[in-house]
Amino acid sequence: MSNLDKVLETLDADRQGALYRLFELLRFKSISTDPAYAPECARAADWLVAQLQSLGFEASSRPTAGHPIVVAKAKAARPDAPHVLIYGHYDVQPVDPVELWQSDPFDPRLVESETGPKIVARGAADDKGQLMTFVEACRAFRAHGGLPCGITFLFEGEEESGSTSLPAFLEANAKELRANLMLVCDTNMWDRDTPLITCMLRGLALEEVVIKAASRDLHSGMFGGPAVNPIHVLAKIIAGLRDETGRITLPGFYEGVPELPEEIKQQWEALKFDAKDFLGEVGLSVPAGEANYSVLEQIWARPTCDVNGVIGGYVGPGSKTVLPAQASAKFSFRLVGKQNPQAIVDAFRAYVLENLPADCEAEFISHGASPALSLPFRSEAILRASRALEAEWGRPAVLAASGGSIPIVGLFKRELKMDALMVGFGLDDDRIHSPNEKYELSSFQKGARSWARILAALAA
Amino acid sequence: MSNLDKVLETLDADRQGALYRLFELLRFKSISTDPAYAPECARAADWLVAQLQSLGFEASSRPTAGHPIVVAKAKAARPDAPHVLIYGHYDVQPVDPVELWQSDPFDPRLVESETGPKIVARGAADDKGQLMTFVEACRAFRAHGGLPCGITFLFEGEEESGSTSLPAFLEANAKELRANLMLVCDTNMWDRDTPLITCMLRGLALEEVVIKAASRDLHSGMFGGPAVNPIHVLAKIIAGLRDETGRITLPGFYEGVPELPEEIKQQWEALKFDAKDFLGEVGLSVPAGEANYSVLEQIWARPTCDVNGVIGGYVGPGSKTVLPAQASAKFSFRLVGKQNPQAIVDAFRAYVLENLPADCEAEFISHGASPALSLPFRSEAILRASRALEAEWGRPAVLAASGGSIPIVGLFKRELKMDALMVGFGLDDDRIHSPNEKYELSSFQKGARSWARILAALAA
Repeated sequence: MSNLDKVLETLDADRQGALYRLFELLRFKSISTDPAYAPECARAADWLVAQLQSLGFEASSRPTAGHPIVVAKAKAARPDAPHVLIYGHYDVQPVDPVELWQSDPFDPRLVESETGPKIVARGAADDKGQLMTFVEACRAFRAHGGLPCGITFLFEGEEESGSTSLPAFLEANAKELRANLMLVCDTNMWDRDTPLITCMLRGLALEEVVIKAASRDLHSGMFGGPAVNPIHVLAKIIAGLRDETGRITLPGFYEGVPELPEEIKQQWEALKFDAKDFLGEVGLSVPAGEANYSVLEQIWARPTCDVNGVIGGYVGPGSKTVLPAQASAKFSFRLVGKQNPQAIVDAFRAYVLENLPADCEAEFISHGASPALSLPFRSEAILRASRALEAEWGRPAVLAASGGSIPIVGLFKRELKMDALMVGFGLDDDRIHSPNEKYELSSFQKGARSWARILAALAA
Repeated sequence: MSNLDKVLETLDADRQGALYRLFELLRFKSISTDPAYAPECARAADWLVAQLQSLGFEASSRPTAGHPIVVAKAKAARPDAPHVLIYGHYDVQPVDPVELWQSDPFDPRLVESETGPKIVARGAADDKGQLMTFVEACRAFRAHGGLPCGITFLFEGEEESGSTSLPAFLEANAKELRANLMLVCDTNMWDRDTPLITCMLRGLALEEVVIKAASRDLHSGMFGGPAVNPIHVLAKIIAGLRDETGRITLPGFYEGVPELPEEIKQQWEALKFDAKDFLGEVGLSVPAGEANYSVLEQIWARPTCDVNGVIGGYVGPGSKTVLPAQASAKFSFRLVGKQNPQAIVDAFRAYVLENLPADCEAEFISHGASPALSLPFRSEAILRASRALEAEWGRPAVLAASGGSIPIVGLFKRELKMDALMVGFGLDDDRIHSPNEKYELSSFQKGARSWARILAALAA
């Protein structure tokens, strides 16, 4: 029996223990965007430190201006083995609307279903379940002669709120964190049986705008007519950002947006992605993005401008005849290719200011920005990982893109010149960021086995 | 000394008592739009009943599907005297944003200032302070031979939430409530020294819209592009309601909107209304209503379409990359002349439905509607009231219009064929519906004296 087989056998034998440990982590209410949950974030970080120390890692929870970053380091059994940096995040999205959850989001459960058992909790898939697949793989290697690669863990606590503390942390700790390759476990499979390596990621710029008009809320009978209404101003700004074809109208917005190479386009068409099913699962039927692009291209390879939240005036029960003093909206831009996040933010701010009528002011609040990222499709790391995944799942890995952002990948590329191998075991129906988030038990168990195989392959 | 002079003397002698009673009424948190405050509304009604019973009125709090209506009746000293119906409302607007209040909105205070003492509390001006001016006038007459007119009080508890229970109540009690004239004390003075009679009122239609898209909130990375965003849909609907000149674009919206008679236009121009000051007081400078109409016309004689509240997606601290399943807005239309509220609502709903993209639905919630109202400028009641007000304030009363609605006036006109005399003592800077609402102590005291004079004049 090879050493890898023994490691896989150990993973299989300790499935109950692994699940117990994941549930412990899922119970922390580590919602990073809401300051009220800062102590829960700190406790989640401390729990990870204790876990990794028990596996022989030199681990600590490092304070930042925001939530702490967990760093843990261990050497490989063989001195000439490569060293990898593995990234994950222990923070989670808010749980509202909480009344739509079928059980407490922070009381994890194993729920049986026709397609197998599912782990249900906020963060089950994004990203606590995923990061624990890697931790469990390391645990199994410890029982069989040690780690095949040197490993540095970096688990941040602000991925869901813009990773604001991370750039300074990376700059300050660049030397300590540098490695041969970065591994990221925050992505999805193609379907429940087909592994996937993510080779392109959209970037993200988050920008909040507060439109201010009168010095106080006004009575709409007394002032309705002559008083400018900031909700109208904001609505016009939002409405003007897209034309009838779904194209974003900000000047210069499409600078650096590449057309997809014909080769990749053909690969993606061959995937027979079922757009009707994809939209139908969430009650939609007609793609609302840019005309002349397929749904897969709209998600994986085209930029967006969305409003994630809007509020102004009276929003309680009944009515209130008020002209509000202000209204605000949270915008997000998904970016691709070489789009420059700062240039996009600048163009957006200029557009808002140009469209402000008399007596209005705009206040801008930035919630972070990161560029899009592409990795070479045919690198050595991707070839080895592909073979390892095929051995575990019995079919070739899809080489794909992702519509979501993992800002750290871009940051590491810039700060430490490292490429990233993005492999994860989430599924499209995991409801991440939504009520009743879940992670397949098979993803959790075969995910840990997959990482064991990949680590062995990278060190071979 | 005439009987009226004795009544006025009694009012002056009992100023402390009157203020004490008003403070008692102001302490009830009678916010009608929020069901949580229903018990406070009932208690305010009961307090009024007890007050009026102590003044010899046959008074009761009548249950409705919403908040109770207070009705109280007393005969005149002389059997041939006219009978008047006096209308007011004991409910108040919500107090949010409560953090902008300098003191507890329901702990009334007398605050000294350069322009004289002010009563500060939610409802001080709208409408508890105003309605108590009339109650105090009645109290003083009781000490001097009884009421000069027969009087029926009607105090409702849903004026700030669309007066939804009132139409059925009026229909059911038409006979009991009929009178020679209706008096309404819910309007303003021209300035702190000049009394005003309101001869025209704008109507109001309140309509809420919920735009629904996907069956659940979506991750903007995974679905951003192809998934329709209900905030965008709503923004486009709001933005499309007005053109560049401030004109409302709904088909048929201006049907029944009269141009102002040249005579009234000249009267209003002669008022030398300081639009710059009016807007400047609330931090504005440029009129945002229909081009080619003065600010006074925009408020008093032109219709509007405003959004009073909007909400959708994540509005907590920080950011959340969510595409919300729904977004909603509360609209209000101020109406003039013969505009038909139901036709406006129908046109609005048709417009929204026409502008819904694929996969979106609209849910409509009506919060009430009432037409605009005009009264003859030269009726006998207005002439007598004008002279009475001039005697109290030492200058002629302005005959004016009001941008706000008093739905009951239209209802009474329709149900009971009564004209209404609208006199009130609020000031433009009373901050009604806003934080730190106040009522001038002089308005309260001279207001009660004014009503005493008007009642005597109507009975002469």
